[in-house]
Amino acid sequence: MQYISPPGTLYLIPVPIAPETHQQVLPAYNTILVHRLTHFLVENERTARRFIKQVAHPLPLEDIHLQPLNKHAPVEDIATYIQPLLSGHDMGILAEAGCPGVADPGAAVVHYAHQHHIPVIPLVGPCSILLALMASGFSGQNFAFHGYLPINKEARNKAIKRLEMQALQNQQTQIFIETPYRNEALLAALLDTCKPTTCLCIGKNITAPDGWIQSKPIKAWKQHKPSLNQVPSVFLLSS
Amino acid sequence: MQYISPPGTLYLIPVPIAPETHQQVLPAYNTILVHRLTHFLVENERTARRFIKQVAHPLPLEDIHLQPLNKHAPVEDIATYIQPLLSGHDMGILAEAGCPGVADPGAAVVHYAHQHHIPVIPLVGPCSILLALMASGFSGQNFAFHGYLPINKEARNKAIKRLEMQALQNQQTQIFIETPYRNEALLAALLDTCKPTTCLCIGKNITAPDGWIQSKPIKAWKQHKPSLNQVPSVFLLSS
Repeated sequence: MQYISPPGTLYLIPVPIAPETHQQVLPAYNTILVHRLTHFLVENERTARRFIKQVAHPLPLEDIHLQPLNKHAPVEDIATYIQPLLSGHDMGILAEAGCPGVADPGAAVVHYAHQHHIPVIPLVGPCSILLALMASGFSGQNFAFHGYLPINKEARNKAIKRLEMQALQNQQTQIFIETPYRNEALLAALLDTCKPTTCLCIGKNITAPDGWIQSKPIKAWKQHKPSLNQVPSVFLLSS
Repeated sequence: MQYISPPGTLYLIPVPIAPETHQQVLPAYNTILVHRLTHFLVENERTARRFIKQVAHPLPLEDIHLQPLNKHAPVEDIATYIQPLLSGHDMGILAEAGCPGVADPGAAVVHYAHQHHIPVIPLVGPCSILLALMASGFSGQNFAFHGYLPINKEARNKAIKRLEMQALQNQQTQIFIETPYRNEALLAALLDTCKPTTCLCIGKNITAPDGWIQSKPIKAWKQHKPSLNQVPSVFLLSS
């Protein structure tokens, strides 16, 4: 591939995970940087437009290039996505919420960027997995994130058993998430499957005014089951 | 334990990981919050004082309570540490750099806080592990952080082999760190031990003006070995 000019820089730009928390969760620097960009790769166009408006981008929206980012895009499409970078434009990746590349698409584009010697710079912002880990009181020296557990009940219970075992044997914090409408089924499965003394941390609606992060043994959660229905949550297990 | 008043809130307060990057990596909200606090648990008193000065805390330093946080503290000491919380004061935990509780002490205190129903709130800030993962282009759906690898050469090479295998078999990004003066020995071991096609991401001096994060196959790193001596770095392996 031939460069007409030096390539641009690919910025990974976090987006708030709860509404109206922009000032609380993003450094002022991020806004300054976003104002300089005119090309974005976006997971969700609607939320990207809202974010760009919220940070008061000086250009009208119609002058800003938003390229939807299809997570199953073939390599040829990724080459097209990053064409502006190769022509010397800086670009930003905007996840739907949280940090691009972490439990979110974007990694394939970043991988391609490295192959083409494009500088990649991540900005600081909210990541519910990291915030839950910090506030869990569980080991932050040794942890694993597994994304979503299987949907099938039997496979899910097996996965929970395996994670509980790994937490105990390796002293490793086990982190996972669920689609919000399945949170309560996952919680019920955790309470049914895990030992009463296993520690479970739940982070519910992290960074939102009503959000909380609490760690308790399974037996204590059983006495006060929280309502997690439809609310983004993170789950952590520790021995 | 009896509460005289409702307990305070325990805030987990990130500290910049590179000098003079305060504005770039911390939300303005963090400063507002730190200004309200008079009690801190700190990993390192000197860096904590510098941070509190940098954010222009309105009180003179001698009126601010800094309790050094000994990571090997017995439970009795932790009970003493959080006494101000139990008496109704809000408190902050300040790591030496980065996020409290992640590859850093603090988790034991947070664990104790949960046992005593003290609200725990993490603030957003820089975490070199998360930033490196975002910018690696490796899987952010499935990853594990292992802290430090063994110092002994044979044990370290064995650990590297195991991590390389886990990266391949589980499609899981493997993240680890090293004491800065041992970075070059670790890099040499990685280049010697891993397959030429295994992908290695190195994040050097993340968030500093001269910092960078790059992903390449082992064989490409062999051709241009970076100098990492004495500079904080994060290492990631992917198949």
